Amino acid sequence: MKVGIIGASGYGGLELIRLLHGHKEVESIDLFSSSEEGNIFSNKYAHLMNIYDTPLHKIDSGHLANLDVVFTSTPSGVSSKLLPSLIGKGPRLIDLSGDFRLPEREYEKWYKKEAAPTDALEESVYGLSEWNRVQIKEASLIANPGCYPTAVLLSLLPAVNNSLINTDNLIIDAKSGVSGAGNKPGQITHYSVANENLSIYKVNQHQHIPEIEQGLELFARKPQPITFSTHLVPMTRGILAASYAPLADGVTEQQLIDCYKETYKDEAFVRFNQDASPFGTNQVYGSNYCDIQIHVDPRTNRATIVAVIDNLVKGAAGQAIQNMNIQFDLDESTGLSVIPLFI
Amino acid sequence: MKVGIIGASGYGGLELIRLLHGHKEVESIDLFSSSEEGNIFSNKYAHLMNIYDTPLHKIDSGHLANLDVVFTSTPSGVSSKLLPSLIGKGPRLIDLSGDFRLPEREYEKWYKKEAAPTDALEESVYGLSEWNRVQIKEASLIANPGCYPTAVLLSLLPAVNNSLINTDNLIIDAKSGVSGAGNKPGQITHYSVANENLSIYKVNQHQHIPEIEQGLELFARKPQPITFSTHLVPMTRGILAASYAPLADGVTEQQLIDCYKETYKDEAFVRFNQDASPFGTNQVYGSNYCDIQIHVDPRTNRATIVAVIDNLVKGAAGQAIQNMNIQFDLDESTGLSVIPLFI
Amino acid sequence: MKVGIIGASGYGGLELIRLLHGHKEVESIDLFSSSEEGNIFSNKYAHLMNIYDTPLHKIDSGHLANLDVVFTSTPSGVSSKLLPSLIGKGPRLIDLSGDFRLPEREYEKWYKKEAAPTDALEESVYGLSEWNRVQIKEASLIANPGCYPTAVLLSLLPAVNNSLINTDNLIIDAKSGVSGAGNKPGQITHYSVANENLSIYKVNQHQHIPEIEQGLELFARKPQPITFSTHLVPMTRGILAASYAPLADGVTEQQLIDCYKETYKDEAFVRFNQDASPFGTNQVYGSNYCDIQIHVDPRTNRATIVAVIDNLVKGAAGQAIQNMNIQFDLDESTGLSVIPLFI
Amino acid sequence: MKVGIIGASGYGGLELIRLLHGHKEVESIDLFSSSEEGNIFSNKYAHLMNIYDTPLHKIDSGHLANLDVVFTSTPSGVSSKLLPSLIGKGPRLIDLSGDFRLPEREYEKWYKKEAAPTDALEESVYGLSEWNRVQIKEASLIANPGCYPTAVLLSLLPAVNNSLINTDNLIIDAKSGVSGAGNKPGQITHYSVANENLSIYKVNQHQHIPEIEQGLELFARKPQPITFSTHLVPMTRGILAASYAPLADGVTEQQLIDCYKETYKDEAFVRFNQDASPFGTNQVYGSNYCDIQIHVDPRTNRATIVAVIDNLVKGAAGQAIQNMNIQFDLDESTGLSVIPLFI
Repeated sequence: MKVGIIGASGYGGLELIRLLHGHKEVESIDLFSSSEEGNIFSNKYAHLMNIYDTPLHKIDSGHLANLDVVFTSTPSGVSSKLLPSLIGKGPRLIDLSGDFRLPEREYEKWYKKEAAPTDALEESVYGLSEWNRVQIKEASLIANPGCYPTAVLLSLLPAVNNSLINTDNLIIDAKSGVSGAGNKPGQITHYSVANENLSIYKVNQHQHIPEIEQGLELFARKPQPITFSTHLVPMTRGILAASYAPLADGVTEQQLIDCYKETYKDEAFVRFNQDASPFGTNQVYGSNYCDIQIHVDPRTNRATIVAVIDNLVKGAAGQAIQNMNIQFDLDESTGLSVIPLFI
Repeated sequence: MKVGIIGASGYGGLELIRLLHGHKEVESIDLFSSSEEGNIFSNKYAHLMNIYDTPLHKIDSGHLANLDVVFTSTPSGVSSKLLPSLIGKGPRLIDLSGDFRLPEREYEKWYKKEAAPTDALEESVYGLSEWNRVQIKEASLIANPGCYPTAVLLSLLPAVNNSLINTDNLIIDAKSGVSGAGNKPGQITHYSVANENLSIYKVNQHQHIPEIEQGLELFARKPQPITFSTHLVPMTRGILAASYAPLADGVTEQQLIDCYKETYKDEAFVRFNQDASPFGTNQVYGSNYCDIQIHVDPRTNRATIVAVIDNLVKGAAGQAIQNMNIQFDLDESTGLSVIPLFI
Repeated sequence: MKVGIIGASGYGGLELIRLLHGHKEVESIDLFSSSEEGNIFSNKYAHLMNIYDTPLHKIDSGHLANLDVVFTSTPSGVSSKLLPSLIGKGPRLIDLSGDFRLPEREYEKWYKKEAAPTDALEESVYGLSEWNRVQIKEASLIANPGCYPTAVLLSLLPAVNNSLINTDNLIIDAKSGVSGAGNKPGQITHYSVANENLSIYKVNQHQHIPEIEQGLELFARKPQPITFSTHLVPMTRGILAASYAPLADGVTEQQLIDCYKETYKDEAFVRFNQDASPFGTNQVYGSNYCDIQIHVDPRTNRATIVAVIDNLVKGAAGQAIQNMNIQFDLDESTGLSVIPLFI
Repeated sequence: MKVGIIGASGYGGLELIRLLHGHKEVESIDLFSSSEEGNIFSNKYAHLMNIYDTPLHKIDSGHLANLDVVFTSTPSGVSSKLLPSLIGKGPRLIDLSGDFRLPEREYEKWYKKEAAPTDALEESVYGLSEWNRVQIKEASLIANPGCYPTAVLLSLLPAVNNSLINTDNLIIDAKSGVSGAGNKPGQITHYSVANENLSIYKVNQHQHIPEIEQGLELFARKPQPITFSTHLVPMTRGILAASYAPLADGVTEQQLIDCYKETYKDEAFVRFNQDASPFGTNQVYGSNYCDIQIHVDPRTNRATIVAVIDNLVKGAAGQAIQNMNIQFDLDESTGLSVIPLFI
């Protein structure tokens, strides 16, 4: 398979290169850039010396059309313009940005940018691998999920889908490493400001809110607004999402646990781990795993459901490759059998 | 004033030394140790060279009785045995551990250790400075609050006390730097395990739960069990506590904001800062401040109340000194006018 | 004393505010800005809420002339234009930038900017407190030393001055926390790039090289080129400089040690600590101390001389205030009795 | 190939598991423990859930003898007792500790432990892959090099071997992430002490000194004592070693550069990268690469030669696997085609 990456400089793009390099079915990776055409990629990224020493290609639809898969790892507002004309032209399109995840009006309200054309939005399929395989398989354009929504939806859908928790008052408190903010320098991601500092931002305003609510509705028919907070943690990678909800009437902790075991028992990348204590992002670092743990407090009968992922892998590039594997009838683990870097 | 510190090697103890050193009313600081009597303290802690080069004293009740204030910064289960005999013997006693914060049965249930004698427990006064001044002033023994409870209670009491939020389903998601786990090496605080890792631990099991619930009952007459999660963040200092609750019927965001402004308007160390974004622990680093911020989501009518403190200062040593200042009729800021190390 | 700070947003400026706030002789601190005149400073820096809530002043020579001290904490190339007209107009001028440290030609060669006017350069006095008190006391304009040169000169001058080491082949390997790179966001200081990464930069090219060489010549008459490497360390504050040189003929380790003890025995801020092991930047964190340690290897008869400072304190703001204290005949520790934040 | 790992809990062991898991010629990995026989490994290391859920085996020579390769990743003083009886019994032995790197007397002097038996020491081959292939290939027991020596020798041997630098006064200043100190908790590696702190330790005393000197003598016939300093950096992984030496008479910078290009031109894992600036450990993070860069200062005619490796990969497990590949006639990159995690 010949693949192409537009936006290779972004962190999602760098991770795609890292993982696709070890993918046995991928024969070539072309990197495209609008601004750095002709530059040798490893001149910018020394870690890729001897690995990717070829020049970046100009974004050319002819060239792109000859590929099997095109990944876009671009800032919001770019793929919405770039991809529509490529739909149905040959390559499967997998977009890591938020441009195709939401309907027009929601996108414009939360992202404050012009949405992609309606017909392109209608073509797009939400790429939450474990929950949408059938659609993903046939999709011409995959809207790869956001990092926070991946962790939250994987950790909540079994309970919500089976009506085991009460969703009237879903509280989600999420924490992410700083790479989640992207590669563009700014005040908030300036080392001296982000280091030795935990901060909360975009309380109830994060553009992942509509995506999570949409996912809960899409996969579990629960249209309920959520309370969602995000934090920036002084580490590069990792997301830990803690979700809080009361158990539904008559539901026991054991039923909840059994539900998760059953839902994910055949999944390669979702691990239900009740025993790990502490339970942290280092368990999945650099890998495509999503680990989940559940605590029910007998004093209050409320559930605390926790998930950890690597925001750049299962939260972006890894899930994108997993979706590609689904589309090409490959073992879903192809290129993704990375053991976490626990330390 | 002559002060003494038992347990100076603990992080609370080191912070007491750092802050008391600049306290204009403190004329001497004696350090006591049970195991390192005679050792020069700056041999162990090079940062104190030329500052504290005298030997550690043996724990001697005669010597202690001649001091004005004795601080204990010891692990659980130590001051419960050490302090009772000193009550009423002269010095004011300020304990940074949890040994005197809870009634016997609660302490034994949550700390899994033998509680202090009942009469000593009855003497002790809970040292949440802003909420208990009258009692603190006369106390022979202060149970200095835990770090998490300080942040949580300061941030919730105004709303709870004025019945502005519904406390049936209080969710508190708290995050702390690793110094909160103390100075004793162990697997969880081993650098290679704690670095580049965010983990959740003691979900619904933390010994600060009964303390928070007791505080809510004591100061606001709301005996409700809470949901409380704690996380270890890869940084040394800082606590951020995010509390979630629906607004009580008919309450508006403005009423909530006005309540906090009013409650804390004359407080030197509690700052209500609605504008800071992001809102993080670096705002209060190394200082005795507690900053609070409130967000109300109009979509859900739920409040997210956030507080940040330095776990070693307002969460321990700083609050202890603030309590000492109250007891000795000094300006509460004496020795505590430290500007935060934002970077 | 009334002081003013131009460039308060810079990290040197923020540290000046933090330390001057506790300086008992400073009655007011005016903050000046060319671009943010009128803005409330604590709106930008939340940690200063209730501490510095007044607006930034326009840079006005009349206003500045009425102050006792004006500090400039600006990027290179700014104070060279701003300060000359203020020389002799009233306030003592203390510049934290490199603009007045070097002669014209050296400055232009290494900083690649236009130098300050020659007469202003001739007025300026190099502010290495421990070594230049007499000149500092009378200076109208102090060129406050750079962070690396402060650590290196304090650690080498005793040995060089007394011809105890051979300076033909001085190797200096220095490491700094990322705040040394300033507050302006960029690729190198982007959190995801700087975290979990140790890198070397500006090998033999750093603009502190001529400053160190000049210092060695000025205070010890040793005009020798040095080998100087700098590294960026994943921490916010701290510099550790390791210097390597053979002992001069016939010199013993004991003579070297005695020399340092003697040289610095009455110094408040230079601590010669042979026993601390490990020996690290946390010993001086947030304080004005410079700690020094010496190792002589009997196998090779070479000395390894190590110094640690906080790059923002003794490497910038702290030393600037120390110089101000010298100028105003105050105890040099005034406002600088900060105990290091060991953790 | 069937491989076994004794000391899988150590960081070298964990990395062996991570990398061998993706090695296409490895059919099974047995983990052995003296103290935790029977325990399920993933109960201790949650990141290995679903990857390594089998119990740890008792250390049994019969079992070990049936393997093709046995790796020992144990603390000093363990493999010296464990391995001698296995020499020649079947499996190739690859030891990651220091027990077989030095002659008896050197080992006892620097490691302060009893050395391995002389005949076992004589059997052992020093496993610096790029420089000792012929011997490695036939070895029954490989003494895998230490982390610092790997970086230092790879970066110095070309210059030393070709007499391009003067080795009379070799200064090596090395910095390592904290994982280099191992997995056993202690004061120095306690998070609160190691974080936000750069420290120097074991100046001229590190047990890697004799190993480096021996390597310089073994591969380049230069028996000269070195000056060697080590630092602990607040990051988990990575080593940067900066070596300083004057150029030999008449040698030019270009000759030095050409020498390195030539020496390493066909090497898969040593990359000579003159252009990367900054030049840091993130270029090789998690991978088996060693990147090298050279700077010659025309002002002094001295060379600064810098190398970066991941201390756990090229500095331990990666090099061990590379040696195994050499021994089994496999492509040296087998199982080691890991792209660095730049962020």
